[in-house]
Amino acid sequence: SSFEYVKKFELDDTLLPNTWIVVRLDGKCFHKFADDHNFKKPNDLRALKLMNYAAFSVMRDFSDLLMGFGQSDEYSFVFKKDCNLYKRRAAKLLTTITSKFSTSYTYYWNKFLGDQQLLYPPSFDGRIVLYPNEDTLIDYMKWRQADVHINNLYNTTFWTLVQEGKLSPTQASFNCYVITLNKGHSFNFYILFQAEKRLCGTVSADKNEILFKEFNINYNNELEIFKRGTLLFRKNINIDESNKCSTVIVDVHDDMLKDSFWKDHKDLFTIKSKQHFIYNGPMTEIISAQLHGRKSVIPETT
Amino acid sequence: SSFEYVKKFELDDTLLPNTWIVVRLDGKCFHKFADDHNFKKPNDLRALKLMNYAAFSVMRDFSDLLMGFGQSDEYSFVFKKDCNLYKRRAAKLLTTITSKFSTSYTYYWNKFLGDQQLLYPPSFDGRIVLYPNEDTLIDYMKWRQADVHINNLYNTTFWTLVQEGKLSPTQASFNCYVITLNKGHSFNFYILFQAEKRLCGTVSADKNEILFKEFNINYNNELEIFKRGTLLFRKNINIDESNKCSTVIVDVHDDMLKDSFWKDHKDLFTIKSKQHFIYNGPMTEIISAQLHGRKSVIPETT
Amino acid sequence: SSFEYVKKFELDDTLLPNTWIVVRLDGKCFHKFADDHNFKKPNDLRALKLMNYAAFSVMRDFSDLLMGFGQSDEYSFVFKKDCNLYKRRAAKLLTTITSKFSTSYTYYWNKFLGDQQLLYPPSFDGRIVLYPNEDTLIDYMKWRQADVHINNLYNTTFWTLVQEGKLSPTQASFNCYVITLNKGHSFNFYILFQAEKRLCGTVSADKNEILFKEFNINYNNELEIFKRGTLLFRKNINIDESNKCSTVIVDVHDDMLKDSFWKDHKDLFTIKSKQHFIYNGPMTEIISAQLHGRKSVIPETT
Amino acid sequence: SSFEYVKKFELDDTLLPNTWIVVRLDGKCFHKFADDHNFKKPNDLRALKLMNYAAFSVMRDFSDLLMGFGQSDEYSFVFKKDCNLYKRRAAKLLTTITSKFSTSYTYYWNKFLGDQQLLYPPSFDGRIVLYPNEDTLIDYMKWRQADVHINNLYNTTFWTLVQEGKLSPTQASFNCYVITLNKGHSFNFYILFQAEKRLCGTVSADKNEILFKEFNINYNNELEIFKRGTLLFRKNINIDESNKCSTVIVDVHDDMLKDSFWKDHKDLFTIKSKQHFIYNGPMTEIISAQLHGRKSVIPETT
Ligand SMILES: Nc1nc2c(ncn2[C@H]2C[C@H](O)[C@@H](COP(=O)(O)OP(=O)(O)OP(=O)(O)O)O2)c(=O)[nH]1
Ligand SMILES: Nc1nc2c(ncn2[C@H]2C[C@H](O)[C@@H](COP(=O)(O)OP(=O)(O)OP(=O)(O)O)O2)c(=O)[nH]1
Ligand SMILES: Nc1nc2c(ncn2[C@H]2C[C@H](O)[C@@H](COP(=O)(O)OP(=O)(O)OP(=O)(O)O)O2)c(=O)[nH]1
Ligand SMILES: Nc1nc2c(ncn2[C@H]2C[C@H](O)[C@@H](COP(=O)(O)OP(=O)(O)OP(=O)(O)O)O2)c(=O)[nH]1
Ligand SMILES: O=P(O)(O)OP(=O)(O)OP(=O)(O)O
Ligand SMILES: O=P(O)(O)OP(=O)(O)OP(=O)(O)O
Ligand SMILES: O=P(O)(O)OP(=O)(O)OP(=O)(O)O
Ligand SMILES: O=P(O)(O)OP(=O)(O)OP(=O)(O)O
Ligand SMILES: [Mg+2]
Ligand SMILES: [Mg+2]
Ligand SMILES: [Mg+2]
Ligand SMILES: [Mg+2]
Ligand SMILES: [Mg+2]
Ligand SMILES: [Mg+2]
Ligand SMILES: [Mg+2]
Ligand SMILES: [Mg+2]
Ligand SMILES: [Mg+2]
Ligand SMILES: [Mg+2]
Ligand SMILES: [Mg+2]
Ligand SMILES: [Mg+2]
Repeated sequence: SSFEYVKKFELDDTLLPNTWIVVRLDGKCFHKFADDHNFKKPNDLRALKLMNYAAFSVMRDFSDLLMGFGQSDEYSFVFKKDCNLYKRRAAKLLTTITSKFSTSYTYYWNKFLGDQQLLYPPSFDGRIVLYPNEDTLIDYMKWRQADVHINNLYNTTFWTLVQEGKLSPTQASFNCYVITLNKGHSFNFYILFQAEKRLCGTVSADKNEILFKEFNINYNNELEIFKRGTLLFRKNINIDESNKCSTVIVDVHDDMLKDSFWKDHKDLFTIKSKQHFIYNGPMTEIISAQLHGRKSVIPETT
Repeated sequence: SSFEYVKKFELDDTLLPNTWIVVRLDGKCFHKFADDHNFKKPNDLRALKLMNYAAFSVMRDFSDLLMGFGQSDEYSFVFKKDCNLYKRRAAKLLTTITSKFSTSYTYYWNKFLGDQQLLYPPSFDGRIVLYPNEDTLIDYMKWRQADVHINNLYNTTFWTLVQEGKLSPTQASFNCYVITLNKGHSFNFYILFQAEKRLCGTVSADKNEILFKEFNINYNNELEIFKRGTLLFRKNINIDESNKCSTVIVDVHDDMLKDSFWKDHKDLFTIKSKQHFIYNGPMTEIISAQLHGRKSVIPETT
Repeated sequence: SSFEYVKKFELDDTLLPNTWIVVRLDGKCFHKFADDHNFKKPNDLRALKLMNYAAFSVMRDFSDLLMGFGQSDEYSFVFKKDCNLYKRRAAKLLTTITSKFSTSYTYYWNKFLGDQQLLYPPSFDGRIVLYPNEDTLIDYMKWRQADVHINNLYNTTFWTLVQEGKLSPTQASFNCYVITLNKGHSFNFYILFQAEKRLCGTVSADKNEILFKEFNINYNNELEIFKRGTLLFRKNINIDESNKCSTVIVDVHDDMLKDSFWKDHKDLFTIKSKQHFIYNGPMTEIISAQLHGRKSVIPETT
Repeated sequence: SSFEYVKKFELDDTLLPNTWIVVRLDGKCFHKFADDHNFKKPNDLRALKLMNYAAFSVMRDFSDLLMGFGQSDEYSFVFKKDCNLYKRRAAKLLTTITSKFSTSYTYYWNKFLGDQQLLYPPSFDGRIVLYPNEDTLIDYMKWRQADVHINNLYNTTFWTLVQEGKLSPTQASFNCYVITLNKGHSFNFYILFQAEKRLCGTVSADKNEILFKEFNINYNNELEIFKRGTLLFRKNINIDESNKCSTVIVDVHDDMLKDSFWKDHKDLFTIKSKQHFIYNGPMTEIISAQLHGRKSVIPETT
C-alpha cells in the first residue's frame, strides 16, 4: 500500500559480530509481587525453581544459548559469540527471549506454586549487554554470582534476626511501629529497624558469626541454590548401559568465582565440543524432564 | 564488588525526545500456534478477543500509552511523544511492554479459550519504531489497518473457496494431494492450490464478487473486528445519571483510513484533554471490566 | 580476499527519516588557538569572516543544507528533513561536513588573516543532533543565537573593563599579579579578577549601563555580526536589468529570536520554493564571490 | 536560556568498552582530486608522503593511537582498546581525528607538493569500526594491506601498458577515441580499453609476467611504500652514545600479512611496554622531524 514507506523508519540494530551477547531479565516490582504471592523470605525455593524452569524453557528453544544464570528475580542468558540468530538483530533477540521467559514463568506457575494462585500477570524487563572477550564475560558471571552471595548472606541474617531474633520491642514501641502492610501482613517496623541497625557496617564474618552464635545456624549448610544461584548449560549424559550419550541442559550450583571452574569448563564457551563434557551430578527435575521419553534413562539414584 | 566494572558495558539507549514511540509486537510462528490450538480460519474471534484483552492489560499498566492497534497475531502500541517513562530508555520500554503483553496473553487464555488447553508458552517478538510527526504516525496506523483489509479479504475468500467451494477434486487428484498435517488435520492440497490459483491476480472487487456471486456472502457484513482490527484508546464515559465521568480504555473498530477519523480524534495525540471526548459506543467486555466496581454504571444496553 | 569478512563489523548508522539533521562543529581548544594567533578580543572580525567563508564553502558543496549558523568558534548546519544524501548514513554526513569545513578554514586562512601566519593545523569537533519538528529546530537556532547575545554582551563589557577600564591596581598588587602568558602577552590578573568580580551577578541591563555610562559605548551600535552571529541560507538575487534571478547563498545577521523572522522565512524549511524569496540586502563578500563570473551583476552599491 | 532543553536531543554515543576502535578515513572523490592536481599514475610518491605526514600529525596529537596504516587516499587509525579519550564518545573521536587529518593534509600540502598549487580544499569521509579482539583487528590490518597489493599490482601493470605499452592504436581508432579530459589531459580511450581487456581475468602471476617479460620490470623492485602502504607506530630510538632512548613515531613498510610480523610486534597492542622495542630502521623524514630539537641525534646515515 501507499503507506508502506513507514517501514523505512525501522532502523537496523545489528549487534557487533564476534562478541558475547548477554540478555539479562529482571522481575518488575518483584518486591511487591513476592509479597502478593506469599513468597517465603528471604528465599522461596518454589519461586526459584519456577525461575529456573522458565529459563530452561528458553534455553531449550534457543540452541545458540550457551549459559543461563539465575538468582532472585533475575536471569542472564549468554549467546555464543558467533551467534547469527535473526542476523544478530538486537530487538529480535532481546524480545523473543524476554517474551518466552515471561510466558513460561506464567505457564509453569502451577507446576511449582500450585497452592498459590497467580493473581495477575507478572512482567520482566530485559536488556542486552555485549562483552568483547572471555575475560569480561567471566567477570560478568562472577559479578552476578558475587551478588547472590552478598545479598543472600545479608537477607538470611536479616530475616533470621526478624523472625527468630530476640529483638522483642517494648509494648510501647510495638504500638508505635506496627503497621499493616498490603495483603494483611502485620510487620513490626521497630523490629525491622532494629535488624537493619544491627547489620549496618558488618562484614561477612560478622554475619556468619551472628547466625552461628546466636541462632546456631551454619551458613555453609544453607542450600547451594540460595548461596550461589543456578547455572544452566548443556552437558552430555549417559542414558543407558550401552554408553550412549544424550545432550541435556543441566542445572548446577557451582562456584563460578573460582578460576578453576572456568578452567574446567573451557568448553562452555562453545557449543560444539561437548564430547569430554559428561555430566555426573545429581538427577534434577529439569534434567529428568528432558530424558523422559528418550530411549532409556539411567536411574535417578546414579 | 571488584566485578562491578562490567556494568559499564551497558550502553545508553535513550530514544530521541519529542518523537512518537511505537512498539509493535508479533506472535512468533503463529501459523503453527494457531494450527496447534485449532484457531478457526481465517479468523478466530476468541483469539482476537484474547489479543485485545492482553493489549488492554498493557494499556492499563502504562498510562503513557495513547493507543493500541491489533490485528491477527500483532499489536502496536503508541506512546505519547513527550513520554518520559524510564527516561525513554529503549530496552526498558520495549521489554516491559513485550513481557506484560506476553504474560497477559498466557494468563487470560482460559478466559477466552477455555475449551482449548494452552499447550505450550507462546512468544512474541517486539520492536521499537520512532515517528517524528503526526503525519507519519497516522500513516503508520493506516498502514496497519490497510494490512488488515488486504489480508482479511484475501483470507476470507480463500477459506470460503476451500471450505465451501465447489473445487472438489477428482478422486484421483484427491489421492495425490491429501496430506496429513501436524495435529492430525487432513488437507487437500489440490484444493488449497486451486484456491490460490483462483485468487492470483485478482483485485478487491474480484474477491468481493466471488464471495457475493458464488457464496452469497456480502463482505461488508463481516464482523468489523475482522475487517478493521481493534483500536484501543482512552475515552470518558458517563457512569451514572449525575453526569459524572470516568476515563476508560475503549475498544473500537473504526475506519482509520478516513481522514475524518483523525480530524475527529485530534485529542488522541495527547492524553490530557479528554474533556470533549465522550464515548457513546456499545458496552464491550473490556469497558465493563473497567467499570465494574466503580460507583454505578450505565447499563450495558445503553 | 579472505579478510573481507572484517567489513561486516561496520554497522549501519542510518538516521531516522523525515527528521531535521543538525551538524554542529566547534573549534578544538580555540581559547589557545585564538591566543596563539593574536585574535582580537573579544571578537576578531577577520576570524569570524574566515569561519563564515569556510561554512559558505560547505554550503556550496552540500545542496541539501538549508542553513548554516555561526558564532565564535562554532558552526551549525541544518539539512532539509527529507535529505537522503549518503542514504542518511550518520558518519558519512558528519565527517564530510567536518572535513570540508576544516580544510576550508585552513585553505582560506590567508584570504582573511593574511598578516598572521597559520602556525599549526587547527581542528574541529563535530556532532549530529536530530530534531523531529520545526518547533524544536527553531528553538535550536534560537538557542545558538541567544548564546551569542549572552556571551557577547558579557565579553564586550569584560574586555572593555579590562582594556579601557579604570581598574588600575595599586602598584603593589600589580607586581603580584602580572603574569606573562604564553605568546608573550602580559596580563594583569588583578585586573581580570576585578572585571570578573564587577560583572558577577549582573543582568543584561547592568552590563548595558556599565558600557554606556562608564565608557560611552552603546551596545546596540556594536556590529551585528558580533551581536547575532551569521546565518547562511539560499536566496534569489536579481542579477541584471532583465529581471533574471540567480540563487545564491547569503550571509545575514537577522534576529532569529523574533517569531516574525520564522514567519517571514517559512520557505527556509524547504529548498524548492525560493521563488518569492528575493534577497535585497547588502552585497557581501560571500555573495559577490558567487556572482562573479555569472552573466552580469547588479552593482554592489544597489 | 529557555531554549537549553534542545541540548537533550544530543544522544549518548559511547562506544563499547575494552574494544579496539578503528577510524578509517578516505579521500572524497580523489580520482578527480588526483587528476586535478596532476598526481603521477598509478602512485605519486609526494602525495603518499603527504598522507603519511598528515597521519603523523594526527598520531602526535592522540597518544591513545597505537597504529596508523595508510595507502592510496585512505588512512586507518587504531586506538588502544582501553582508550578512554572523550569517554569513548564516538562522534568526538571520529570528528577530531577526521578534522585534524584533513587540516594537516591541507596545511602540509606545500611541504610535499610545493610545485603544485592546491586548487581547492579537499575532503575526507570517516567511519568508526569496532573490533572485539586481536584476531579480528589483525585481520583488519591484513585486509587493508592485501588491498594495497591487489590494487597496486593491477595499477602498475595497467599504467605500464598504457604509458609504455605497444598498444598503439591505428590512426583511425585514435581519432575516434581521443578525448580531452578535464584539466586538458588527452587520453586515448582505445588504449585504456585495450589495457583493461588485456588484464581482465589475469591473476597475480600473469601480471608479474607481463611486467617482467614485456617491460623488463621486476615488480619486487617497486618501492615498498607502493607495494605495502605505510604503517605508523611508536618505537624507541637511541638518540646518542649514552644509550638514552626517545620514543618516536616511525613509518615502516613491513609485511603485515606474515604472522611473524604480529608475533614480533605483540607490544603493538599496548602503548606502555615499549622497552624491548628499539627501532633500528632507516632515518625517515617523519622520524627526523621528531628528533630535531631533542638533545643529540644519531646521524641519519646510521
Ligand atoms: N520473599 C521473597 N522475595 C523475593 C525472592 N526473590 C526475589 N524476591 C524479591 C525481593 C527483592 O526485593 C526483589 C528483587 O529485587 P529488585 O532489585 O529486582 O527489585 P524489584 O523487582 O522490586 O524492582 P525492579 O522493578 O526490579 O526495579 O524480589 C524470594 O525468593 N522470596
Ligand atoms: N487460524 C487462524 N490463524 C491466525 C489467526 N490470526 C493469526 N493467525 C495466524 C495465521 C498467520 O499465518 C499468522 C500471522 O502471520 P505472521 O506473518 O505473523 O507469521 P508467523 O507468526 O507464522 O511467523 P513470524 O514468527 O511472525 O515470522 O498467524 C486467526 O484468527 N485464525
Ligand atoms: N580572542 C578571540 N577569541 C575567540 C574568538 N572567537 C572564539 N574565541 C575563543 C574564545 C573562547 O574561549 C573559545 C571558544 O570557546 P569554547 O567553549 O569552544 O572553548 P575551546 O574552543 O577553548 O575548547 P573546546 O575544545 O571547544 O572544549 O574560542 C574571537 O573572535 N576572538
Ligand atoms: N594518480 C594517482 N591517483 C591516486 C593516487 N592515490 C589515490 N589516487 C586516486 C585514484 C583512485 O581512484 C582514488 C581512490 O579510490 P577511491 O575508491 O577512494 O575513490 P574516490 O576517492 O574517487 O571516491 P570516494 O569519494 O572515495 O568514493 O584516488 C596516486 O598516488 N596517484
Ligand atoms: O540491577 P540493575 O542493573 O537492574 O540495576 P537497577 O538499579 O535496577 O537499574 P536499572 O534496572 O534501571 O538499569
Ligand atoms: O511484518 P514484519 O515487520 O514483522 O515483517 P517480517 O517480514 O516479519 O520481518 P521481520 O519480523 O523479520 O522484521
Ligand atoms: O557547547 P558544547 O555542546 O560543546 O558543550 P561542551 O560543554 O563543550 O560539551 P562537549 O563535551 O559536548 O563538547
Ligand atoms: O572501501 P569503502 O569501505 O569506502 O567502500 P565504498 O564502496 O567506498 O563504500 P562506502 O560507501 O562505505 O564508502
Ligand atoms: Mg533493574
Ligand atoms: Mg526486579
Ligand atoms: Mg532483581
Ligand atoms: Mg515479523
Ligand atoms: Mg507472527
Ligand atoms: Mg503477524
Ligand atoms: Mg564542546
Ligand atoms: Mg571550542
Ligand atoms: Mg565554542
Ligand atoms: Mg568509500
Ligand atoms: Mg576515496
Ligand atoms: Mg580510497
